[in-house]
Amino acid sequence: MLMKVDYSIRCRAMVPMAEGAPDVVRDALILIRGNKVEWAGAAKDAPVDVSAANVVNMPHAYAIPGFVNTHTHAAMVLMRGFGDDLALQEWLTTKIFPTEEGLTGDDVYWGTLLASIEMIKSGCTSFADMYFFMEGAAQAVADSGIRATLARSVSSISDPNAEKLKESLEFCLRWNGVADGRITTMMSPHSLYTCSPYYVRRLVNLAKENGLGIHTHLAETKREEQYAMENFGMSTARKMDELGLFDVKALVAHCVWLSDEDMGIMAEKGVCVAHNPGSNMKIASGIARVTDMRKKGLTVGIGTDGAASNNNLDMLEEMRLATLLAKVSTLDPTALPARETLKMATLDGAKCLPGGDTIGAIAHGMKADIAFIDTRAEHMCPEHDVISNIVYAASAADVDTVFVDGKPVMQGRRMLYVDEQEVKRQCAERAARLVGRSKV
Amino acid sequence: MLMKVDYSIRCRAMVPMAEGAPDVVRDALILIRGNKVEWAGAAKDAPVDVSAANVVNMPHAYAIPGFVNTHTHAAMVLMRGFGDDLALQEWLTTKIFPTEEGLTGDDVYWGTLLASIEMIKSGCTSFADMYFFMEGAAQAVADSGIRATLARSVSSISDPNAEKLKESLEFCLRWNGVADGRITTMMSPHSLYTCSPYYVRRLVNLAKENGLGIHTHLAETKREEQYAMENFGMSTARKMDELGLFDVKALVAHCVWLSDEDMGIMAEKGVCVAHNPGSNMKIASGIARVTDMRKKGLTVGIGTDGAASNNNLDMLEEMRLATLLAKVSTLDPTALPARETLKMATLDGAKCLPGGDTIGAIAHGMKADIAFIDTRAEHMCPEHDVISNIVYAASAADVDTVFVDGKPVMQGRRMLYVDEQEVKRQCAERAARLVGRSKV
Repeated sequence: MLMKVDYSIRCRAMVPMAEGAPDVVRDALILIRGNKVEWAGAAKDAPVDVSAANVVNMPHAYAIPGFVNTHTHAAMVLMRGFGDDLALQEWLTTKIFPTEEGLTGDDVYWGTLLASIEMIKSGCTSFADMYFFMEGAAQAVADSGIRATLARSVSSISDPNAEKLKESLEFCLRWNGVADGRITTMMSPHSLYTCSPYYVRRLVNLAKENGLGIHTHLAETKREEQYAMENFGMSTARKMDELGLFDVKALVAHCVWLSDEDMGIMAEKGVCVAHNPGSNMKIASGIARVTDMRKKGLTVGIGTDGAASNNNLDMLEEMRLATLLAKVSTLDPTALPARETLKMATLDGAKCLPGGDTIGAIAHGMKADIAFIDTRAEHMCPEHDVISNIVYAASAADVDTVFVDGKPVMQGRRMLYVDEQEVKRQCAERAARLVGRSKV
Repeated sequence: MLMKVDYSIRCRAMVPMAEGAPDVVRDALILIRGNKVEWAGAAKDAPVDVSAANVVNMPHAYAIPGFVNTHTHAAMVLMRGFGDDLALQEWLTTKIFPTEEGLTGDDVYWGTLLASIEMIKSGCTSFADMYFFMEGAAQAVADSGIRATLARSVSSISDPNAEKLKESLEFCLRWNGVADGRITTMMSPHSLYTCSPYYVRRLVNLAKENGLGIHTHLAETKREEQYAMENFGMSTARKMDELGLFDVKALVAHCVWLSDEDMGIMAEKGVCVAHNPGSNMKIASGIARVTDMRKKGLTVGIGTDGAASNNNLDMLEEMRLATLLAKVSTLDPTALPARETLKMATLDGAKCLPGGDTIGAIAHGMKADIAFIDTRAEHMCPEHDVISNIVYAASAADVDTVFVDGKPVMQGRRMLYVDEQEVKRQCAERAARLVGRSKV
């Protein structure tokens, strides 16, 4: 019987990252119908009768599931490089907060668009975002072709009448499933130290009533843990658990200062963790115990955090930091081997998002979110180990082509749906305006 | 009076890294005569009467001194990705050593050529190498256009009659100053744990008699320090000092396990340190106390180490690892700020090499070793801080053009003196042969 597909893509090798599939498939073929993978495997085992509307040959490329960036504040690219190397509180109060006060919805639109391009160009096909003016962010996601889980971050400090809380719910309901389902939404209390327990409880209840998950910061700094101990006599994780936050699908970022007990509670409740090695290193928050978390059964994805504390959104770099940091912090070179790290950055990251069981692997029935990495750079030669070359040697610039939801959004490093020049021009101007304001 | 120059290069900004110069010069002009910078500064301040044989405009590029990779084993690119994520001894004894036994001089030539291309493509203009078959390495340096300080690594374990020691001296004398001075040489005992004290002393004496410096590994692993304590009752650094190694120009790699006392001795003797954060993380050797070393007055450069333990030779990535690791290991976000890190990767690295006072900065009289970084990628937008964007956001692929010794060796990411395809083909074949052998 004839199999009709939209794309037939043949490439040098594929890392399917799927249950039961081999780690690496050489001379691979991927067939895409609509927004899903219809068939993926070795070209020699391919179905015989295939009629493809588009035939793509990438004999020099590896196919991997698109990266899932599990924690970022996309529009903060506008503050990239503004106030580095400062102490945390000085940075926040003299640089970031004053700049954010001047942000408009249009700024967030253009900033998120720039971030989306940057992410696609480094092989990322999904991201979990928490920020403000999320209508702008959602429009940027719709326009760029990327997939995202968006959350309007709220805190009781800046929301005495809980109006922003209501807004954030409305945002969730309005945008969930929009752009052919590429947009999903979550609720987002900023953190325990900026949200009263009463506020968190209200937010959790709204999330429960509406079937929404929650994305928040947790145990990022030692100071944050001290705050929780002083105010609640328990850790942030235990307090958040008490407030019911772990009873919904929870994605918590950083988790640098978790105790073994915290990890146990979170594993039992199925909490997902976004590990942000670059940001944790740059802001000097500390080293998250990723190996221990994974041993306890926690699902751990990788995230870049915002570009103000990274300073790029390069998931290849972030993945490499994750494995290198795990090894040196445990003094164990076998910690977080290459394949496990790639799994964190793709399949495990996908599990952190709502609807995440449909992405993160290249296999029949999965959504076709795929990055193709060119192997012709000197740093990819020789080819002793495909996964090792991807995790330890590849560069974002090696990503040649990216599919999201069954369609190419970048080909030959050219974005297909957005005007890159205009986005950069807009962002450069807006960034200059924002910083001018903060200098007043 | 008319100033005749070979190149007049105008670019978006320059980071001269020179004594007394501003950190960043916007709209910069660089004039090159022969192999040296004749003049560098703001275009508006340029000499009036200039006649340039070649005028180059790079309105989108930053000029920085070419990176100095202070410690690598270039030809080990042939083992990139071969045996990752293994315990150190297992990796060395089952993967690296058996493979190295099969190496030929031609392998080292082609491997070093591949490494040189990779380094040039990430903005590196000089490297300090220690390995075997150094005639091959030297020829590759001559052919690729890069600058290097080469050393034939020796150990008493594999050199009972000190024949290799003699060879290594002959290599030094034959190649020092070759290729218009782009090649310099050093002696190189592999390490204290592979060289008897008698052997080290002989090597030191040969170095002294011939005015040569020494490049070695020092205090890389805890095990190495334990060996020194058990065998000599003192640290590796103290023993090496006792053997006279610090009485010549010494470049010592890793220095993960130095005590305060070790640092004091080394600072007093003017020892230069190659910091290798990527390799130290990947092999899980530990975290070198770079901030403390610099406070004590040690000159610390940055190195990639060999590609078998990195797995690329990307100095931008290595520089970023250095600052991130310094911050998180001290829990101080102000540790190793961007400019200091760039200085380590350029000017301070230069000081680690013989003749290093003539490279590492863009200023009158310095050799014209310059990397030009294109700023048009999304991750370089906006431009709040030039140095921050270079250190925290840029990618090797942004390096567009590289000058070494007054001449372009790469332009528009094309190598000018070597056939990239042929180099990769040779290395892929040779790598396959070597690994086949080690599987026997």
